[in-house]
Amino acid sequence: MQNEFNIIEHYFKRQEKQRSDVVIGIGDDGAVTQVQPEHQLVTVTDTLVEGVHFDQTTPARAVGHKCIAVNLSDLAAMGAEPCWISLALTLPDIDELWLNEFAAGLHEVCQYYGCTLIGGDTTRGPLTVTVTAQGQLPTGSALTRDGAKAGDWLYVSGPLGDAGLALDITQQRYPKASPHLQKLVERLHYPTPRVALGQSLRGVASACIDVSDGLLADLQHILSASGVGAEIELDRLPLSLAMTETLSQEDAFVKALTAGDDYELCFTVEESNRGRLETLTAHLKNRPICIGRIQKVASEPITFKLFGEEYTLSLPRSGYNHFANIEADPS
Amino acid sequence: MQNEFNIIEHYFKRQEKQRSDVVIGIGDDGAVTQVQPEHQLVTVTDTLVEGVHFDQTTPARAVGHKCIAVNLSDLAAMGAEPCWISLALTLPDIDELWLNEFAAGLHEVCQYYGCTLIGGDTTRGPLTVTVTAQGQLPTGSALTRDGAKAGDWLYVSGPLGDAGLALDITQQRYPKASPHLQKLVERLHYPTPRVALGQSLRGVASACIDVSDGLLADLQHILSASGVGAEIELDRLPLSLAMTETLSQEDAFVKALTAGDDYELCFTVEESNRGRLETLTAHLKNRPICIGRIQKVASEPITFKLFGEEYTLSLPRSGYNHFANIEADPS
Repeated sequence: MQNEFNIIEHYFKRQEKQRSDVVIGIGDDGAVTQVQPEHQLVTVTDTLVEGVHFDQTTPARAVGHKCIAVNLSDLAAMGAEPCWISLALTLPDIDELWLNEFAAGLHEVCQYYGCTLIGGDTTRGPLTVTVTAQGQLPTGSALTRDGAKAGDWLYVSGPLGDAGLALDITQQRYPKASPHLQKLVERLHYPTPRVALGQSLRGVASACIDVSDGLLADLQHILSASGVGAEIELDRLPLSLAMTETLSQEDAFVKALTAGDDYELCFTVEESNRGRLETLTAHLKNRPICIGRIQKVASEPITFKLFGEEYTLSLPRSGYNHFANIEADPS
Repeated sequence: MQNEFNIIEHYFKRQEKQRSDVVIGIGDDGAVTQVQPEHQLVTVTDTLVEGVHFDQTTPARAVGHKCIAVNLSDLAAMGAEPCWISLALTLPDIDELWLNEFAAGLHEVCQYYGCTLIGGDTTRGPLTVTVTAQGQLPTGSALTRDGAKAGDWLYVSGPLGDAGLALDITQQRYPKASPHLQKLVERLHYPTPRVALGQSLRGVASACIDVSDGLLADLQHILSASGVGAEIELDRLPLSLAMTETLSQEDAFVKALTAGDDYELCFTVEESNRGRLETLTAHLKNRPICIGRIQKVASEPITFKLFGEEYTLSLPRSGYNHFANIEADPS
């Protein structure tokens, strides 16, 4: 039986490449790191709980990937470069196979984005993973939620609703299995944080958030913080082929607007910055898509258009809430 | 029913006094903070799980206090000034009374040590509290585990074993209730992180750790990292009146050496720095106690003396291990 010191040493200390700004890493009472001069520190935290955010059928590698990816997505939404990861892992027992796969998924995504695991805590209890990620950005360049102004253009970084659709299909809420299932499940289990885009948006986006609870719920945070409304053009919503082939148009719109777990960025850009956005994102594989415009605040905070005409969508209660007895979407 | 956004807003955002180096606090995708020039960042993480580190009889206020205190103790062991707190709270349901008390305990200790809660995550699941605390220290001044040398003096910051004794008494492992129970339980539930002492030890201590798993287990980390041994003079171990009145001398020594959860500092000081230590700690209410000396590594890493004579203690397997089937000490 391994003890908790060995768990950290064995599974998490073997790092191929450490960042040079990690002065003291895993193995002391705390980690010591060096923030660049003229930079500010950005800190984010997200927890994944078994039975709530994933279940026993979720591959351990996916849990390892996702616990990092969801945090890097938050850092991207702030415009920060991801740097250092702290891992708090609560385990019911020591399952070496699970730990190996979990560590592999975690290390893959850390390596890809140049982050270093600097410490954490391993405890016994119901399976829970909490990651705190730290990033940095030039002083004063953080992307916040409160800068959107009427007239700004509204963007998302990629297709919406796929993770939610994947969950529905795996839970057999649709009669027919989708031929796209594998691709969709990849989107659910291995989300891609928009790290490069987030950093490109510094000085360009007027407001930014990551879409973890569904576009409408997360956009609503920007609108409330900024004191504005928004108009969404439904026909511009980026939908995957899997989505359009599986759901009716109306259902696809609702799924794209309300399903969580996509980890795309939603952001606003002033008219005068649209050219800069084009230039800055020209090199990205997935370029952002304009889906509407910010408006003065009105009775309805969010309105819809379809092919230029006002459109009324029948929406379920939007946004994910762990504590309400609503549909058990993960978040 | 409150939703998770409201939980954070309602219970944790009402802060009396924010640090001025918090640029963006609770309420965006991440927090933005400013590390001082010529300083390094120190990051620590600790998790408390219900049923492992505390139980249903533990006051919520104590859980709130302790989840912060154990992290500040790690920062103190590094010599860092505590600054910013991230809270990941997993709750089975929303118990307003519990949350109010928990938040009160958390805020009290944050306020006292000048820390600001900058963000976190609230999720549904088995009761688990993970705190990541960030501090800072002048570049290059971190206290580590690997600097102890033969001839250095060995210190602890205060009485040992009280928290373990409190746990034993509340679990009725002793026939007679101790008249000191209340004081002991205070030490278990409301540990005092040695924040001021930790910062005073920069440039003075050659190695430092906090005693969370029991003195022998934690001292062993210093000895392994430094490649040295230690001799402990049992008659110098600081024991509370409660301890000496409850246990036999031998049992008190064993308890002081092996029980966890005291959150005192254990550190080593070179002969030439003893005077500086005296001066620097003269103003502290609880001054550190010298309990022995570092030695060249020998067959036994730790040896004991009692009133100047070699002494053999009969010790249970020392140190707390969540995953081994040993006595259920909390950690």
